[in-house]
Amino acid sequence: MDKRDEICDKALELFLTDGYEQTPLSRVAKALGLSKAGLYHYFSSKEELLFQIHERQMERMFIPLLEEAEKFPDPAERVAFFMRQYILHAMTPDPSVRLLVHETQNLAKTHRARINRIWRRGFDLIRNALLEMKAAGKAKDLNMTFATFGALGMCSWIFYWFDYSRQEAAPELADTYVEIFLRGLTT
Amino acid sequence: MDKRDEICDKALELFLTDGYEQTPLSRVAKALGLSKAGLYHYFSSKEELLFQIHERQMERMFIPLLEEAEKFPDPAERVAFFMRQYILHAMTPDPSVRLLVHETQNLAKTHRARINRIWRRGFDLIRNALLEMKAAGKAKDLNMTFATFGALGMCSWIFYWFDYSRQEAAPELADTYVEIFLRGLTT
Repeated sequence: MDKRDEICDKALELFLTDGYEQTPLSRVAKALGLSKAGLYHYFSSKEELLFQIHERQMERMFIPLLEEAEKFPDPAERVAFFMRQYILHAMTPDPSVRLLVHETQNLAKTHRARINRIWRRGFDLIRNALLEMKAAGKAKDLNMTFATFGALGMCSWIFYWFDYSRQEAAPELADTYVEIFLRGLTT
Repeated sequence: MDKRDEICDKALELFLTDGYEQTPLSRVAKALGLSKAGLYHYFSSKEELLFQIHERQMERMFIPLLEEAEKFPDPAERVAFFMRQYILHAMTPDPSVRLLVHETQNLAKTHRARINRIWRRGFDLIRNALLEMKAAGKAKDLNMTFATFGALGMCSWIFYWFDYSRQEAAPELADTYVEIFLRGLTT
C-alpha cells in the first residue's frame, strides 16, 4: 500500500475513535511509527491530511458508484441504483461519512470547493434524472431541486441514527427509501 | 422578559454568529452587561446554558406543534401537519436547529437524555401514525421505523442546504416533502 494511503487509513481510524479536534498529528505519527517530521513529509498540515482523507474516500466510494449509475439509460433506474448503492456503500458500512461531513467546516475554502464539486455530481445526477422523468410525463410537476435534496436528506440522515452493528438491516433500508422516494414522485 | 430567557436568546445569537466552542461565557456576559459572576447566578456552566437553550427551543417550537398534530384523528393528516409545521417553524426560519443538533455532543449525558426524550415524541408521533395507516391497509407493508427516519431525514437535512434569505421558498418546500413522503407510502 502507498504510504499516503496508509497514513490516511490510520488517521481516519483515530479520528473516528477520538474525534478530529481531539486527535493531534503527533498521535497519528506515533500510531504509524513515524516522527512528526516524517508525517510532515507527506502532509503539510492537519487540514491537508483531512482534505486528502475526504477526497480519497470520495474517489473510492462515491465516484465509482456515480459512474456506474450514469450508465443506466432509464432515469428512474438511475436514481434507484444511485440511492441504493449510496446507502449500501457510503452510509451504512461505518460512520466515516458523518465525520467527513461534520469536519468539512475545518477545510480550507479551496479544499472545501473541491470536495463540494464532487458531492455536486451526485446532486446533479439525481436532479437531471428527475427533470428527465418530469419532461417525459413520468414524474409529477414538483420542484426537483427540493426533491433532490429530499432524496439526499433521507439517505444522508442515516448517519445520525443507524446502528452500525446491524449491517443486515442495510438492504431493507435501501429498498424502503428507493420505494418511498420514487413512488412519491411518479405520476 | 424573564432574565433567563434574555440570556438564552443572546447566547443563542452569539453561538449562531461565532460558534458554540468559539464563544466564551465571558463574551455572553459582556453582551448582556453582566459580570461573569452575575451570569453564573443563572447558569452554573456553559453546558447548563446550552442545555437550557436547547430545552427552551424545544418547548417553544417543537412541543406546541406536536400537541397540535396529536389532535388530528386521521393519521395521514397528522403526519402531513407535523412535517409541514416542523419545516415551517423549526427548519426554515433560522439555522438554530442545526446548531442545537450539532452541539448535542457537548451536553452532559443526563441532559442529552432529556432532550432526546422530547425529540423521540416526534419520532413516535410519525411512526404510530404510519403503523395505524398500515393496519388500516392505507399504507404499504414497509418498515415503518426506517420510513419514519426517512421523513425526519428529508426534513432535518434542510439545515445543511437551505438558503435562509429565501423564506418565501419554505411553503413550497413543505408541500413537496409532504407530497413525496405520503404518496410514496400509500397504497
